[in-house]
Amino acid sequence: MIDVAVVGATGYTGVELLRILIQHPEVEIKVVTSRAEAGEAVSAVFPNLRQHLQLDFSEPDIASLSACDLVFFATPNGTAMTMAPELMAKGVKVIDLSADFRIRDAELWSHWYGMEHACKELLSDAVYGLPEVNREKIKKAQLVANPGCYPTAVQLGFIPLLKNQLVDPGSLIADVKSGVSGAGRKAALGTLLCEVSENFKAYAIKGHRHHPEIVQGLNEHSSETVNLTFMPHLVPMIRGIQASLYASLLKSDVDIQALYEDFYRNEPFVDVLETGLSPETRAVNGSNMCHLAVMQPADSNKIVILAAEDNLVKGAAGQAVQNMNLMFDFEETSGLNIVSILP
Amino acid sequence: MIDVAVVGATGYTGVELLRILIQHPEVEIKVVTSRAEAGEAVSAVFPNLRQHLQLDFSEPDIASLSACDLVFFATPNGTAMTMAPELMAKGVKVIDLSADFRIRDAELWSHWYGMEHACKELLSDAVYGLPEVNREKIKKAQLVANPGCYPTAVQLGFIPLLKNQLVDPGSLIADVKSGVSGAGRKAALGTLLCEVSENFKAYAIKGHRHHPEIVQGLNEHSSETVNLTFMPHLVPMIRGIQASLYASLLKSDVDIQALYEDFYRNEPFVDVLETGLSPETRAVNGSNMCHLAVMQPADSNKIVILAAEDNLVKGAAGQAVQNMNLMFDFEETSGLNIVSILP
Amino acid sequence: MIDVAVVGATGYTGVELLRILIQHPEVEIKVVTSRAEAGEAVSAVFPNLRQHLQLDFSEPDIASLSACDLVFFATPNGTAMTMAPELMAKGVKVIDLSADFRIRDAELWSHWYGMEHACKELLSDAVYGLPEVNREKIKKAQLVANPGCYPTAVQLGFIPLLKNQLVDPGSLIADVKSGVSGAGRKAALGTLLCEVSENFKAYAIKGHRHHPEIVQGLNEHSSETVNLTFMPHLVPMIRGIQASLYASLLKSDVDIQALYEDFYRNEPFVDVLETGLSPETRAVNGSNMCHLAVMQPADSNKIVILAAEDNLVKGAAGQAVQNMNLMFDFEETSGLNIVSILP
Amino acid sequence: MIDVAVVGATGYTGVELLRILIQHPEVEIKVVTSRAEAGEAVSAVFPNLRQHLQLDFSEPDIASLSACDLVFFATPNGTAMTMAPELMAKGVKVIDLSADFRIRDAELWSHWYGMEHACKELLSDAVYGLPEVNREKIKKAQLVANPGCYPTAVQLGFIPLLKNQLVDPGSLIADVKSGVSGAGRKAALGTLLCEVSENFKAYAIKGHRHHPEIVQGLNEHSSETVNLTFMPHLVPMIRGIQASLYASLLKSDVDIQALYEDFYRNEPFVDVLETGLSPETRAVNGSNMCHLAVMQPADSNKIVILAAEDNLVKGAAGQAVQNMNLMFDFEETSGLNIVSILP
Repeated sequence: MIDVAVVGATGYTGVELLRILIQHPEVEIKVVTSRAEAGEAVSAVFPNLRQHLQLDFSEPDIASLSACDLVFFATPNGTAMTMAPELMAKGVKVIDLSADFRIRDAELWSHWYGMEHACKELLSDAVYGLPEVNREKIKKAQLVANPGCYPTAVQLGFIPLLKNQLVDPGSLIADVKSGVSGAGRKAALGTLLCEVSENFKAYAIKGHRHHPEIVQGLNEHSSETVNLTFMPHLVPMIRGIQASLYASLLKSDVDIQALYEDFYRNEPFVDVLETGLSPETRAVNGSNMCHLAVMQPADSNKIVILAAEDNLVKGAAGQAVQNMNLMFDFEETSGLNIVSILP
Repeated sequence: MIDVAVVGATGYTGVELLRILIQHPEVEIKVVTSRAEAGEAVSAVFPNLRQHLQLDFSEPDIASLSACDLVFFATPNGTAMTMAPELMAKGVKVIDLSADFRIRDAELWSHWYGMEHACKELLSDAVYGLPEVNREKIKKAQLVANPGCYPTAVQLGFIPLLKNQLVDPGSLIADVKSGVSGAGRKAALGTLLCEVSENFKAYAIKGHRHHPEIVQGLNEHSSETVNLTFMPHLVPMIRGIQASLYASLLKSDVDIQALYEDFYRNEPFVDVLETGLSPETRAVNGSNMCHLAVMQPADSNKIVILAAEDNLVKGAAGQAVQNMNLMFDFEETSGLNIVSILP
Repeated sequence: MIDVAVVGATGYTGVELLRILIQHPEVEIKVVTSRAEAGEAVSAVFPNLRQHLQLDFSEPDIASLSACDLVFFATPNGTAMTMAPELMAKGVKVIDLSADFRIRDAELWSHWYGMEHACKELLSDAVYGLPEVNREKIKKAQLVANPGCYPTAVQLGFIPLLKNQLVDPGSLIADVKSGVSGAGRKAALGTLLCEVSENFKAYAIKGHRHHPEIVQGLNEHSSETVNLTFMPHLVPMIRGIQASLYASLLKSDVDIQALYEDFYRNEPFVDVLETGLSPETRAVNGSNMCHLAVMQPADSNKIVILAAEDNLVKGAAGQAVQNMNLMFDFEETSGLNIVSILP
Repeated sequence: MIDVAVVGATGYTGVELLRILIQHPEVEIKVVTSRAEAGEAVSAVFPNLRQHLQLDFSEPDIASLSACDLVFFATPNGTAMTMAPELMAKGVKVIDLSADFRIRDAELWSHWYGMEHACKELLSDAVYGLPEVNREKIKKAQLVANPGCYPTAVQLGFIPLLKNQLVDPGSLIADVKSGVSGAGRKAALGTLLCEVSENFKAYAIKGHRHHPEIVQGLNEHSSETVNLTFMPHLVPMIRGIQASLYASLLKSDVDIQALYEDFYRNEPFVDVLETGLSPETRAVNGSNMCHLAVMQPADSNKIVILAAEDNLVKGAAGQAVQNMNLMFDFEETSGLNIVSILP
């Protein structure tokens, strides 16, 4: 049993993390912070937590946070990097669900996130929390950078192809689609129901912050530098990410379906669907699973990988709990055996 | 640990029941039947159950069903009444989520359901499975008639008023609204996304089958025969029922908020919200809770009760599991401590 | 051909007004104002107007506005009352789509709208722009107060009953449901897709500003003071209002269906549906029609009137154009012969 | 003024065609057929047409159809090819909105549509009704094969690149997304709101019927045979198609934005957006426009074209009316100056 804190829990990632942690057998939630809602009952903001969590939001302060074994940051970018060092100095473990520690190159980070990095010295210590890639490192980490939602799906989809040198690393295209919760919980014109419902479009067409994170991750598995065309789209629904991933095949005599099944056979949260099935976001709604499918168009040298995940779970809060389980030597699936809600 | 069967599990009530039973600590799902899908993996029809349920649909047969301790019927109306007697003769307990045993008057039932009742002799034995009303009877029942979705919300809302003779029983109005899953999972023009999305309307305006069920239930708590105007509406969303209940007050000096809080103080699945809050369906999405609120318009002799529930959980599968828990002397909340998913 | 201006055209009422005016044969749009977007092309904010309107937003100024024959105010409450007097002094006609001139009692207005009324002297001159009630007055008006969205549906529904003294004026209940566009186009947490989609609830349960407006309107047609219980709900869709209206019948021998058909026989924008049909919002989506239906529950002394309209058209911009047509002696239906879009 | 008939008007394409034709100044709708609904008022099936169309559905018969100048087929595939020859022999013009005459190779057609072609002799006479490509041929045609919804967007997007030999024809990828109305109006499990709402997935992953149609069209503009990876997805909304089109650039020194603007400068229904904008489906909702944008990722040899259209308008009924205007020498934009409805 460990004591945990969630800093900045008024967003969708925060409430989802609370939902999972409440049901986790090894965790007690001790502190839930929010500057804006301090003093308010958590369940007044999130009525789904009525009867499940009897805490008020508090102001974040180092004393109460450092009394915990683990602090999750579900804050906007730029906050975790200012608080993590002090907490870590006191021996607290940290999982950052924001982007502060995802990119190892501080200059590249500054370019995309528009601010100076406040804590460059920790960038090399932070472990990128994609368990399928970094499981052993995560177990020993004090600071985990929880991956972005798109990067999780795109990396899980492309890595087996790259690692086995089956595709041209210069040919990668990721056409990705996300539910609106990916844009966060904040007063904004652009994500009003009346602006995004009954509508579909590509967005961030001048460049998306997850692009450098994905490329950094894919390059670790590629002999040549990857070139990725990354195109995000907004889907008129609350949760879910679907990715259609395209690459040019270098070899035509490989059973890629079998290769994917082997690659992920022991992964509890990656499920390679049978040939002919298409991953759909609702099948993983509320769960930590990522569904993958391999599709090879006839008369073509292209390979298509399809992926689906819940952006708030495997793409955020669920993956954070998976990382926590690894860091504290719990069962990796503890608290994450969630059956998706359908319909 | 008991063995259970779910008959007719290809509908939304069926899949929701499976989702809850899979996570129930005292239950093993032994048989899942569907004539149409026999031989097919359950998870092929419901991909959210991949990795959670390794069963195929089978043809319903008495032998395998009667090997179970409990059989749930999630079938269309008219099926349970033909199979229940034989199962019960073999000592099996039955929870019927269809309407076959909800109305005690066989003639009235036939009028609304358009067929002869096949099993009138069991109508008086069947216990109406609203635990807040019939808890002790349910504990001893062999056959439970699980209430309809609307009747659950409307009865929980009106009963405290009637029981305390606070309102004119001839003045009741229930303006109720349901997500589309209430219409079931079957090929139909009327519930296509393109027919019901971005649309709102009243339906069944010539009369709805839940009307006699509600009236039967309310009359048990009223000194005079109730007269209920019941108006269902279809909401462009998947899950959830909201009811706005109106009645003419007979007394003006009663603290109705306090009365409701007292009335439901010990009920694990009824939550009376603080004054000024409005029950919203998403707060109970996927959970077995019913949220109630009391609202008294200024300068008016009317009282308004607002209710929200998940039609597939407290309005169907969750309530069925609550009944199961009572029938088998499990903790009443066992398997039902579900935190709603939000957003 | 007249020249018109639209003040405050960055909201949903504004863009809908522009859509209708663009297609109106007697109107030239000369000025479209917005303080926030001044200098920006209107079609940059509203891409549906590309190729249809080649104007930029401008700062509102009396000189350019008073060069028009008619100024529409699609502004937040509190703006029209400060600008209307000066424009009217210059002979300009004004249609106010906000609430500034809807309530004749300035004190009552202040109570609900939270500010002092800046222009009480015009309150008695302003004509309430419900053409079905005030057609002749509107023709001669210089200042029209365009009704609210709920008040339009509720008044059209109840007036025939009250005028014919068929119901108890103390028994009125309006259970009304609105799409999210009724909340306007502004950065806000409460109307994010992730907050209102897949959700249904009553709101404004402590009182809604349209309540006094409706009561004022109904009282004009009632021999006794009406008592109205008014309960608004938020529907997870963009457009549309549906109202279910309840009252206690005083007479049982009247053919109310025939009475409604007669009452509205010559009204171009009120359509009384055949018995057994239920008005649905999609049938009037984008059009200026209000659909009504009469429903009499069996064994009951209640009467139910169902109404559906597009809150942005008959509930706002379309009704404003209908008023304009009357004020300038155009065909009342000019520019409003719009076929609803379905699906 | 011409007399027209719509055969098979109970689908979404049919009702959209009626909506546009009702408002067309040169057209009188004489006959609307449906075997299933014969005798029923059209407005009873489509309440948006109340007060706009006073016709009943009739059985399709050659006599009444051949009294018209033009017959539209909005029928399922396989019907138009059996009726068109007789009508054409009587001098009637035909626009087929189904797929019967879109593919010139009868064997290829049979492979994809699963039936023998009943009228091969007309395949070479039929003109493919994409006005931007075939305007002059359409003007003289007696039989027009109205393009599919996806093929319209994909061809308008790719043709300028291919025609100018800017990209490798072997590298084409079309990641396309459609609203649910593309699946038609028929009782079906797969397009129930509860199955497709809050869900996103690729579908038809074994091959889609629009693939050969697109390839046939693109090959006409390419020096080399094109290879196209075509991946359709289902969006939880009613209307709209968005296409993200990818290709490998052969030349890096061309101003592709300027090239697209030139290419479509005189096209009334293709609008090339300014650099940096992203076409969104709601901006063309209900209108006959196709919005295009050119996007060139940094440090990449890929070019991305984004397209948006209303699948029921430019992708079906609107394009059919555009073709009609050409065939009868009306203004090409007649009846099609529709302002999209937003929000």
